Amino acid sequence: MRLRFTKMHGLGNDFVMIDAISQRVTITPERARQLADRHFGVGCDQVLVVETPDSPDADFKYRIFNHDGSEVENCGNGARCFAVFVRQRGLTAKSVITVETAVGRMVLHVQEDDQVTVDMGAPILSPADIPLAAPQQATSYTLPTQGAGDITIGAVSMGNPHAVYCVNDCKTAPVETLGPEIEAHPHFPKKVNAGFMQVVSPSEINLRVYERGAGETLACGTGACAAVVAGRLQGLLENTVKVNLPGGSLSITWEGVDSPVMMTGPATTVFHGQVKI
Amino acid sequence: MRLRFTKMHGLGNDFVMIDAISQRVTITPERARQLADRHFGVGCDQVLVVETPDSPDADFKYRIFNHDGSEVENCGNGARCFAVFVRQRGLTAKSVITVETAVGRMVLHVQEDDQVTVDMGAPILSPADIPLAAPQQATSYTLPTQGAGDITIGAVSMGNPHAVYCVNDCKTAPVETLGPEIEAHPHFPKKVNAGFMQVVSPSEINLRVYERGAGETLACGTGACAAVVAGRLQGLLENTVKVNLPGGSLSITWEGVDSPVMMTGPATTVFHGQVKI
Repeated sequence: MRLRFTKMHGLGNDFVMIDAISQRVTITPERARQLADRHFGVGCDQVLVVETPDSPDADFKYRIFNHDGSEVENCGNGARCFAVFVRQRGLTAKSVITVETAVGRMVLHVQEDDQVTVDMGAPILSPADIPLAAPQQATSYTLPTQGAGDITIGAVSMGNPHAVYCVNDCKTAPVETLGPEIEAHPHFPKKVNAGFMQVVSPSEINLRVYERGAGETLACGTGACAAVVAGRLQGLLENTVKVNLPGGSLSITWEGVDSPVMMTGPATTVFHGQVKI
Repeated sequence: MRLRFTKMHGLGNDFVMIDAISQRVTITPERARQLADRHFGVGCDQVLVVETPDSPDADFKYRIFNHDGSEVENCGNGARCFAVFVRQRGLTAKSVITVETAVGRMVLHVQEDDQVTVDMGAPILSPADIPLAAPQQATSYTLPTQGAGDITIGAVSMGNPHAVYCVNDCKTAPVETLGPEIEAHPHFPKKVNAGFMQVVSPSEINLRVYERGAGETLACGTGACAAVVAGRLQGLLENTVKVNLPGGSLSITWEGVDSPVMMTGPATTVFHGQVKI
């Protein structure tokens, strides 16, 4: 059969989007792997498949496959692409969309300029739950390193653990050398994503993230949320902050402890295609 | 405008193919770079643009852009994709196609199974022209290395220089470590592509190529030609040899000194798309 798809990206994190509602198609892990292959297939970071929901009070369900065919729990960049995609395909006209994902239900708000706001949930700050080996919760922690001596970090989980390190200039930050050392630091028993944050002003930061198991990426949505939470807790930032990542910018809003982190950002359609499967 | 394109690959070396005959479009280096970007664009190794020829006795002209926007002189994998593409698009029904490229005219033969035969020209064997620092032409040369001591190589230029080193098993060959050392060896003043060849039988070889400036690739067409020439000169191979590369197989035929090397291989269509430019 000929499978119609749309290629989209959220700040350079790119997706093959598949409408499995108006097309009768089953995406197996093996097929997802083939579609995601950048030389022999369509090529993408992830394949996102939109399906009918299990529950009648949700609008859609989606599943996300990594390029190795494994299923991803969730992804802020993918969620934004999803919301723009279903409206573009005429699958819904709603601007508030409820979707079932592998980690539960999400509500997405599509703004007038096609920016999408995603509720990323409340940050987790207790060391035991991040997890981080520390005697008690604090707004910052000292981490002994080989590469930079004792450094001061914020520590936040957004479902995945983040260490946030303030630097004077993101451009020259030692992401490639210090990133792997922080990622594998023994104080973080499940490893950690390492963020390098430059505070430009109380309402703007630059950020580079060395992702756990993946290295530096173009745009880590949970990393942007964690950086703003860490910066807010340290008194460096306001409630709403523009986060400039290598792939583009997100707007992050956090009202404070126990509030959810709201992430707003773009989703870009690159092209439409048909592939024989 | 909406630009129609086809994504193809030759043994995993992938191309965005653009028909600039039935579409009024100019592909600038900047636009090629955007199309080739794997996260923000369509994504490919190279963009191949098919145009009307300058001379009435050629069928077509094509230009190939690297993903950085620079123009490539020529490429065997791209030539095969071109031949299948123009027939598929209905631009010609011929099975022998003459095309103008940046390095002159080529004649391509499309076989019944859509395999394409490309005349790659005669190999260059004189050390001065490869170029290789050696007192006289020989079927093999000794190269002193740090990684593997004195090794015996064949040396051939197919328009670009190749060193071919025989190994017992391609899978375990030290491509990642010895490849860069051979590539930058002072005996090759313009550097060299390093081929690691395992002779399976007189009519079949396995080959991995560490390409000059690019590292190991899925399928180096000129490397396959050079390996067969080097193996033939050393009495290891017959006239026609199946060459198994990581991306797939080519058939290489060489009748001997002064004859052209004929390369036959597949070109695969992956999908058709439309992109707004």
